[in-house]
Amino acid sequence: MKVGVVGLGSMGYGIATSLLRSRHEVWGWDVNADAMTRWRAASGKSDDIVNVAGSLDALVAVVLNAAQVEDVLFGASGLGRLLRRGVVVICCVTVAPAFAREMAAQCDQLGLLFLDAPISGGSVKAVQGQLSIMASGSPAAFSAARPILEATAQNIFELGDEAGAGSAMKAVNQLLAGVHIAAMAEALTFGISQGISPERFVEVIPQCAGTSWMLENRAPHVVSGDYHPHSAVDIWPKDLGIVLDVARASRFSAPLTAVALQQFVAASGMGLGRQDDSAVAKVYARNAGLVLPGEGKSAT
Amino acid sequence: MKVGVVGLGSMGYGIATSLLRSRHEVWGWDVNADAMTRWRAASGKSDDIVNVAGSLDALVAVVLNAAQVEDVLFGASGLGRLLRRGVVVICCVTVAPAFAREMAAQCDQLGLLFLDAPISGGSVKAVQGQLSIMASGSPAAFSAARPILEATAQNIFELGDEAGAGSAMKAVNQLLAGVHIAAMAEALTFGISQGISPERFVEVIPQCAGTSWMLENRAPHVVSGDYHPHSAVDIWPKDLGIVLDVARASRFSAPLTAVALQQFVAASGMGLGRQDDSAVAKVYARNAGLVLPGEGKSAT
Repeated sequence: MKVGVVGLGSMGYGIATSLLRSRHEVWGWDVNADAMTRWRAASGKSDDIVNVAGSLDALVAVVLNAAQVEDVLFGASGLGRLLRRGVVVICCVTVAPAFAREMAAQCDQLGLLFLDAPISGGSVKAVQGQLSIMASGSPAAFSAARPILEATAQNIFELGDEAGAGSAMKAVNQLLAGVHIAAMAEALTFGISQGISPERFVEVIPQCAGTSWMLENRAPHVVSGDYHPHSAVDIWPKDLGIVLDVARASRFSAPLTAVALQQFVAASGMGLGRQDDSAVAKVYARNAGLVLPGEGKSAT
Repeated sequence: MKVGVVGLGSMGYGIATSLLRSRHEVWGWDVNADAMTRWRAASGKSDDIVNVAGSLDALVAVVLNAAQVEDVLFGASGLGRLLRRGVVVICCVTVAPAFAREMAAQCDQLGLLFLDAPISGGSVKAVQGQLSIMASGSPAAFSAARPILEATAQNIFELGDEAGAGSAMKAVNQLLAGVHIAAMAEALTFGISQGISPERFVEVIPQCAGTSWMLENRAPHVVSGDYHPHSAVDIWPKDLGIVLDVARASRFSAPLTAVALQQFVAASGMGLGRQDDSAVAKVYARNAGLVLPGEGKSAT
């Protein structure tokens, strides 16, 4: 298949290279010049996606947010009108379910198929073609997208025949993931305040009922004092913001999500927005006058 | 060894029967007459623990809270003064670290050893002798307690030579466990509000980054609508209350814990204190006007 991938950040680049590995013809695009240079080196293709849009079989959107999705598809130089009828647009971006439904409707008006297909798993699994995809859309959209889903995902959750269900499940997952990262930070730093070293924390808690996927993934970053971003702090004000917007519109009270959001906003406000999201531990540490590993003296 | 077990609730009964299975001589005691009847049937022993206290090698406390620990050991009819010098008191109760240190000091004055040894794992693992024990105390206390720990636990975490460290780790674990149960409830009911059925939730989320040990253990209770208590709602106002008391005393701000506590208090206030702790989902459902499985109509 001839596939366009718009957005070549850590997730989009991984998806694009997974598609290359599965011998699809892939055209990538990104506003960022460095991302384009890296992509051109990897793919050997220098043609602009706009010049090939009329011959693409599928377009994968892996941009940052809803506004960029809308711009890529329907903006002034949007690709939507350049695509042939029957082409599938696979939207991997975390957006509100209502926005996904709106994009699906607009695609439908242009004769395009739309798959609401947010992704989970992180940049390592993206490169390995082992993402989890939470997808919903028409049977025709699923059918057209199938080779692309199979080249990029380990788990394909088929959540119904209407756009929106995929994004709803993604929102549920992000609610939990964000709360669990903040809970890890709260518990690890509380432990320090009671004389439990971060090393001891990661030795004991993963074997107890208090563990979570995020705790096991992120707590080691705090232990090593390495905040090189696997997933950045600034993801969470955005994603938990979407969850809370959706929740409020449904008159759903989500107090843990609201608190977790505030802790990530505080981390961002401390200037840590580009650091690994485990840096939310620094908010707790600063509030309690604690020293984390890698910050001058030992925390133990 | 001759071992006394005080407190024959779901955890204490499991510990006492695990000790019996390992061929220790076990005397149990509980204020509850039904618990005593069940124990006498299981053990074949009808003598009162007070009459054998002078010949015990160890005393295991599995009562409800700090006040009961103090009463059992040092109250008007406390066992502390009846025990021989060198006997080890194993305290499995969730208490504040400072309280554990105080009990250790009082035991020391009577020539008794004290092991701060809170437990994790639930009633099923208690009966199987496969608990996790977060223990701290003097080498002499560990040595005296060793056969009892080995008969009851799968994981024995040795957290230092002073009472308090075990309770501190337990508090860290309870912080996470309580927050994760409430987060499961928040996410599962948020999902319902967005058209995601609880069945679909437990099918997808355990395979995604949003999962936790507690989510995988408790969400199925909500799906089945079965709130028979494995661990009751009323555990959490107590245990998260301990965490927040300890945190406040250390000037540690724990906002997620504070919110989770309020949700469990609300569940208890709704009259659900004796139900399974997954019933905290009913607080969210009631606030959002949602129907959970088993409540009249389908939630999907």
